[in-house]
Amino acid sequence: MDYPKGVKVIKNKDYRYDNRGMILEEDLNLTNQYYINNKIAYIYKRPTPIQVTKTEYRNNKKIIKEAFFKESSTTDYNGLYKGIYIDFEAKETKSKTSFPLGNIHDHQIKHLTNVLDNGGLAFFIIRFTSLNKTFLLTAKDFIEYFKDSKRKSIPLTYFVEKAHLIKESYNIRLDYIKIVDTLLGGTNE
Amino acid sequence: MDYPKGVKVIKNKDYRYDNRGMILEEDLNLTNQYYINNKIAYIYKRPTPIQVTKTEYRNNKKIIKEAFFKESSTTDYNGLYKGIYIDFEAKETKSKTSFPLGNIHDHQIKHLTNVLDNGGLAFFIIRFTSLNKTFLLTAKDFIEYFKDSKRKSIPLTYFVEKAHLIKESYNIRLDYIKIVDTLLGGTNE
Repeated sequence: MDYPKGVKVIKNKDYRYDNRGMILEEDLNLTNQYYINNKIAYIYKRPTPIQVTKTEYRNNKKIIKEAFFKESSTTDYNGLYKGIYIDFEAKETKSKTSFPLGNIHDHQIKHLTNVLDNGGLAFFIIRFTSLNKTFLLTAKDFIEYFKDSKRKSIPLTYFVEKAHLIKESYNIRLDYIKIVDTLLGGTNE
Repeated sequence: MDYPKGVKVIKNKDYRYDNRGMILEEDLNLTNQYYINNKIAYIYKRPTPIQVTKTEYRNNKKIIKEAFFKESSTTDYNGLYKGIYIDFEAKETKSKTSFPLGNIHDHQIKHLTNVLDNGGLAFFIIRFTSLNKTFLLTAKDFIEYFKDSKRKSIPLTYFVEKAHLIKESYNIRLDYIKIVDTLLGGTNE
């Protein structure tokens, strides 16, 4: 195929590598599949929201000829555990000292606030790739920092103090439901 | 703009009118907004899943040049009520006597089974437009019929017997949470 000069064409196969949080995403997908197979929980990834601007029909099938990736208004994952609604965002950072808040959007915070207001469990799973450490930080603690501070990032020390370290293993890559259990035990009984 | 002969171009504004369940969808969106505003529940529509097959960069922004609408592997709506995970599919039919099963897919049934297996609440909201009646039928009752029968549709009599009629009013278009309350009261206490 010929493309105009200077136009970079990316086929679908490469598309996912272009996303942030790729390795963490794979770990979470494997973990969630393990939870589904063993009837532990049912948590799944949301599709990337897309704004369709032009469609046409080809052989009676509607195809999209132009569309844009939208800023997500929700989070990456949701689902349920023992009937309880679960919602979380997963992010990686290469920083060794803090998690940058730049790619967390206000409407994601609004979404998480709605989840908390209605009794659901919401959190962030954040991996410091250089440290090889993955934390679960509750949305409550995240939002507290996000709202009250003028800082552009959450320091690692906040994670060490407030968050829960997720154990990594071969069978269950990131067994975050164990931490969810602790959280539910502490808040729901 | 010039398009090849025989190519029908639809701009985004018209796109939603091309979908089934348009009026029901609008009623549900208004209802869900009412629930959010009054902190009753947080239930929202999922984005339509799209398979991206070709992207390019224009002014450093990635745009989609070809994509396809995918068959949904989940349902239209999910969210939570009093902490409990809620999931449902909404459909309209013009038939006066039965609901056709043709546009319910096996992986949607699989999705709803996963929700039920993990203690969530799942159902269908089905409107018989010619009768001006909207029913809530639990996923359990729906799946029972879907699996055990060779029929291509669910007769209205099944809805009258098993489903719950949803009251329509001006303030809360379709107050389905009232029925959810009954369902939770009956199964969770």
